[in-house]
Amino acid sequence: MNFRDPLAASPAASSAAAAQSSAIPDVQASRDSRRIAIDRVGVKGLRHPVRIARDGEVVTTVAQVDMSVGLAHDRKGAHMSRFVEVLNAHGAAIDAASFRELLATMARRLEADRGTLEMRFPYFVTKTAPVTGVTSLLDYDVRLAGAVDASGAVTIGLQVVVPVTSLCPCSKEISEYGAHNQRSHVTLTVDDAREGLWIDDLIAIAEREASSELYALLKRPDEKYVTERAYDNPKFVEDLARDVAAALARDARVRAYKVEIENFESIHNHSAYACIEGRGTVTA
Amino acid sequence: MNFRDPLAASPAASSAAAAQSSAIPDVQASRDSRRIAIDRVGVKGLRHPVRIARDGEVVTTVAQVDMSVGLAHDRKGAHMSRFVEVLNAHGAAIDAASFRELLATMARRLEADRGTLEMRFPYFVTKTAPVTGVTSLLDYDVRLAGAVDASGAVTIGLQVVVPVTSLCPCSKEISEYGAHNQRSHVTLTVDDAREGLWIDDLIAIAEREASSELYALLKRPDEKYVTERAYDNPKFVEDLARDVAAALARDARVRAYKVEIENFESIHNHSAYACIEGRGTVTA
Amino acid sequence: MNFRDPLAASPAASSAAAAQSSAIPDVQASRDSRRIAIDRVGVKGLRHPVRIARDGEVVTTVAQVDMSVGLAHDRKGAHMSRFVEVLNAHGAAIDAASFRELLATMARRLEADRGTLEMRFPYFVTKTAPVTGVTSLLDYDVRLAGAVDASGAVTIGLQVVVPVTSLCPCSKEISEYGAHNQRSHVTLTVDDAREGLWIDDLIAIAEREASSELYALLKRPDEKYVTERAYDNPKFVEDLARDVAAALARDARVRAYKVEIENFESIHNHSAYACIEGRGTVTA
Amino acid sequence: MNFRDPLAASPAASSAAAAQSSAIPDVQASRDSRRIAIDRVGVKGLRHPVRIARDGEVVTTVAQVDMSVGLAHDRKGAHMSRFVEVLNAHGAAIDAASFRELLATMARRLEADRGTLEMRFPYFVTKTAPVTGVTSLLDYDVRLAGAVDASGAVTIGLQVVVPVTSLCPCSKEISEYGAHNQRSHVTLTVDDAREGLWIDDLIAIAEREASSELYALLKRPDEKYVTERAYDNPKFVEDLARDVAAALARDARVRAYKVEIENFESIHNHSAYACIEGRGTVTA
Repeated sequence: MNFRDPLAASPAASSAAAAQSSAIPDVQASRDSRRIAIDRVGVKGLRHPVRIARDGEVVTTVAQVDMSVGLAHDRKGAHMSRFVEVLNAHGAAIDAASFRELLATMARRLEADRGTLEMRFPYFVTKTAPVTGVTSLLDYDVRLAGAVDASGAVTIGLQVVVPVTSLCPCSKEISEYGAHNQRSHVTLTVDDAREGLWIDDLIAIAEREASSELYALLKRPDEKYVTERAYDNPKFVEDLARDVAAALARDARVRAYKVEIENFESIHNHSAYACIEGRGTVTA
Repeated sequence: MNFRDPLAASPAASSAAAAQSSAIPDVQASRDSRRIAIDRVGVKGLRHPVRIARDGEVVTTVAQVDMSVGLAHDRKGAHMSRFVEVLNAHGAAIDAASFRELLATMARRLEADRGTLEMRFPYFVTKTAPVTGVTSLLDYDVRLAGAVDASGAVTIGLQVVVPVTSLCPCSKEISEYGAHNQRSHVTLTVDDAREGLWIDDLIAIAEREASSELYALLKRPDEKYVTERAYDNPKFVEDLARDVAAALARDARVRAYKVEIENFESIHNHSAYACIEGRGTVTA
Repeated sequence: MNFRDPLAASPAASSAAAAQSSAIPDVQASRDSRRIAIDRVGVKGLRHPVRIARDGEVVTTVAQVDMSVGLAHDRKGAHMSRFVEVLNAHGAAIDAASFRELLATMARRLEADRGTLEMRFPYFVTKTAPVTGVTSLLDYDVRLAGAVDASGAVTIGLQVVVPVTSLCPCSKEISEYGAHNQRSHVTLTVDDAREGLWIDDLIAIAEREASSELYALLKRPDEKYVTERAYDNPKFVEDLARDVAAALARDARVRAYKVEIENFESIHNHSAYACIEGRGTVTA
Repeated sequence: MNFRDPLAASPAASSAAAAQSSAIPDVQASRDSRRIAIDRVGVKGLRHPVRIARDGEVVTTVAQVDMSVGLAHDRKGAHMSRFVEVLNAHGAAIDAASFRELLATMARRLEADRGTLEMRFPYFVTKTAPVTGVTSLLDYDVRLAGAVDASGAVTIGLQVVVPVTSLCPCSKEISEYGAHNQRSHVTLTVDDAREGLWIDDLIAIAEREASSELYALLKRPDEKYVTERAYDNPKFVEDLARDVAAALARDARVRAYKVEIENFESIHNHSAYACIEGRGTVTA
């Protein structure tokens, strides 16, 4: 099913709407005298089904969407309904190119020279269990954040939250047996992603460095594998931050990045946290 | 894209897994001597893409899924991975019939005589603005909760949260002009839905009784319409609960129902709330 | 500081308010002709500082409060502001007796013969680390839910979410070394708590049965202790549910109970869950 | 009750702990060779009762606390338990001075030259209804965020979310009667607050500019007042952002600020949003 087809307003309906609207005062279009420009004005928290492109495939999901434009100091208000019209009219699956296009269309339709577009959604990847090879889907929280400035320059930020297992080196070292371990979130944020860097690339980097990666479906031989793998590969919250940061720094598609690790400690009721912000080997 | 195809484990992979598993102790299958049966054991909070049937159409969305079975007093544990296998293998779009089938398959695969299955997801409906006829999607939170008992009897509960506008009759009556209004949630819960009652039916009942219904996209003539419509149609939280309850009581497909109204008061930082539980005209 | 003192409206202010109010129509007090009684109507999600009694001490915290009464079929609406007045006027620290009193006052002030009162709040307990004896606070989510019915009978339900460590027996058994473990929530719900059963009693029961309890502050000798303790004490989600249920069933102060365990699995991105509902040795 | 007294570890317990710890390897203190410094490492999401100072008074509440320090490239890990010790030992009510002191103590105790401290908590203010003068508490979400850098310079950021009523000027203008209105959040963020600017000052600025302020308790004459007040004072999301920004720009205690407005639209299921970032009249 394509959610967008039924949403394309028919030309007849549109012109009827225009006729009716013209008789009604357009308060938003009036002048403002406070001499204060607005950095961002728009809609926030709009839930919308979206299709995300991945290597020729398409992943269907549901996004929370925020859209905004800059507003000149002498304009009273933005025409909020146009944001929703632009979003509804966008039929293409989301990849870097179509996201840029949606951003540009939004700014043009709102008669603005600056704008931002953000989508947050769960993203599903088919994973293969390490020993038995059974497959299942794992879910990752993704945030795409685009901005166009007055010069027309567009940047696209990409953030992925990758859930993994972390196992504590101190607990392993000081205990006769066992070691506390827990679910952790590796949050990777790339501010201005180069073409060719997409969601799955960031997921792969985070999972490679973790004590172990996660799966929705593990049979007993797989469970034995991930248990031993994590015990063989203990990492502090600091270690995981450093190892992921090093991997991002080596990646030619990454300019500026932020790595955040949050361990939902199995021995405490709070989290351990580490953060590294850095720059890749690319220079702009 | 069909999320389920890549997940069907190949027969080869499955038999390899079985061979490897047989060498590893099956702790869950061992006997338990505490003589305490477990009401529900399973997986909780699994995010999964699902397709929901609607009048020949299919709506794609993302669900949070909980699955459980009853466990006999002498069985140590449930085989948790089987829940995920059953969910992955379910290819059909969700309607009452396929939801029942998934529930039955789950109980059989887990060798249980009782089980529950719950899915919570946003659900999208194309709405048409009241004057200009422009279309947009509105999102509703839905909960499907099925249970199969030891006799094989299946019940399916259906819950929909319908966001609407409510306008306060007291504020309108006592004020020279204006009236406070706000977004409200009408939560309809039907415990054992008869065939033929589906999500859109409950949405229609709630929206008909509200001060006004909501839309993602309204042009100025529409905004004038919904403003005046709400002012002409003021309802206390009690009124809306009573009017929706009366409509459910008249519906031949409804046995037991619960109506909850929550008004996110625009003049307070807390909600007004009303709840009516009742029985429809149907008798079992 | 006592939050309630400044809230006691002065007699002068109150009588002035009464005079002003009398000139304004009282829409809520008018008659309703739909012949539908309302089960619960009131306020929801009111944040309020509260003081909770514990063994002569008082714990200060912040609650989310819901208050409701039943409304006769011929009454148009409840006087919502009276709920807030009753809550503000309640100066005593919350224990079973003062909670009952608040419930009774609310019903009386709202001229109702039935009512419910619920408070949800974090609750802090000073814990002592198992080896070094250093102390720290641990936080637990608590829910107090009271109801008074038309006969004047009052029941008080008590729910506590106790965060603990769980360690998987299957993972321990099948692996050469290590075992996956994670934070888990033990949720204990007692429907009609007898006098003498209070929050700390339920916490103690849950912590005693867990693979290990949690602490905000552990020095290295303590970390060694809790790591080894959990490895020596593996429990499936089913085991923990059964052991806690058995402890509740033995407790003379417990009539009906529900035990829920949710393990935030360190090897999956979803939870394992088990639930047992039962009755204590007490008969009513 | 003072939460902190029971937490002060006795000298005897501390020296016993030190003796036991010395026999156990200190993994965190070992050297790291990856040559990557860590920007922030610490604890996150620790719930803790706190007391907030206000004009000689003290408001008791519950905070979520995050604490971090910078870690040199050659240090393996931070001693996480020390964060909790420092927090527990802090007995003074929180004002700008004691918050700075806690930040400095934390950095010193963790042997770090940089650090951050953040507390998020609900904050209660006694409000007086506009006509009848009845009093009630209103709750505001507050965030205090402090940072100390390598030069020892400390900045304290202050954020307050103020819930208010907004009424739509377009809806009022184009409709024969009524106007849609709703609860809105005014979020004020001041990056480096001057001495003398505290939570209540930001609340007052936001409430003054809103269509109407909120109260937990309103009698009928008050409800009439706030309904008419909002209708007389319509504001777009853009208007409210501009008016609050202008007020902050005039305030001599404000250097850099951000104003965000989110209207939970009563006619849509999404929010309208506006944001202005600016600098005050102060120059550093």
